[in-house]
Amino acid sequence: MKKPIFYHAGCSVCVSAEHDIINLIGAENVEIVHLADDRNRIQDAEKAGVKSVPALVTPNGNVLHINFGASMEDVKK
Amino acid sequence: MKKPIFYHAGCSVCVSAEHDIINLIGAENVEIVHLADDRNRIQDAEKAGVKSVPALVTPNGNVLHINFGASMEDVKK
Repeated sequence: MKKPIFYHAGCSVCVSAEHDIINLIGAENVEIVHLADDRNRIQDAEKAGVKSVPALVTPNGNVLHINFGASMEDVKK
Repeated sequence: MKKPIFYHAGCSVCVSAEHDIINLIGAENVEIVHLADDRNRIQDAEKAGVKSVPALVTPNGNVLHINFGASMEDVKK
């Protein structure tokens, strides 16, 4: 099965949500992508419909925007 | 272990997020509370820090606001 992908950018809201998601679904069941470190994934995230981080893209393609850490515009700066 | 609680109010954003959360963590691992049907839980949700629905309150008390369906003010109407 395709894994959900958790996109974040290292902000405190992102890190807190990352811990919560890992606790809820297990570290082995989610791919974590840090967009500030892995900037060539920014385009994938935008294509998936991610407008802000942290966000979780489910295996069926839905985007769950979780709280609000930073907009994608800020991530791209 | 305490279960996370998913609060929603029957809006389309809520229902979609509910399906995603159940797919991700399993129906048996989350308590679903429908605030429009179960209005005496509204106070619990607000006390937990829920500002809008859908929202997931984790076992350690963090609130993950997921997308945006409706504010708690709208739920109370």
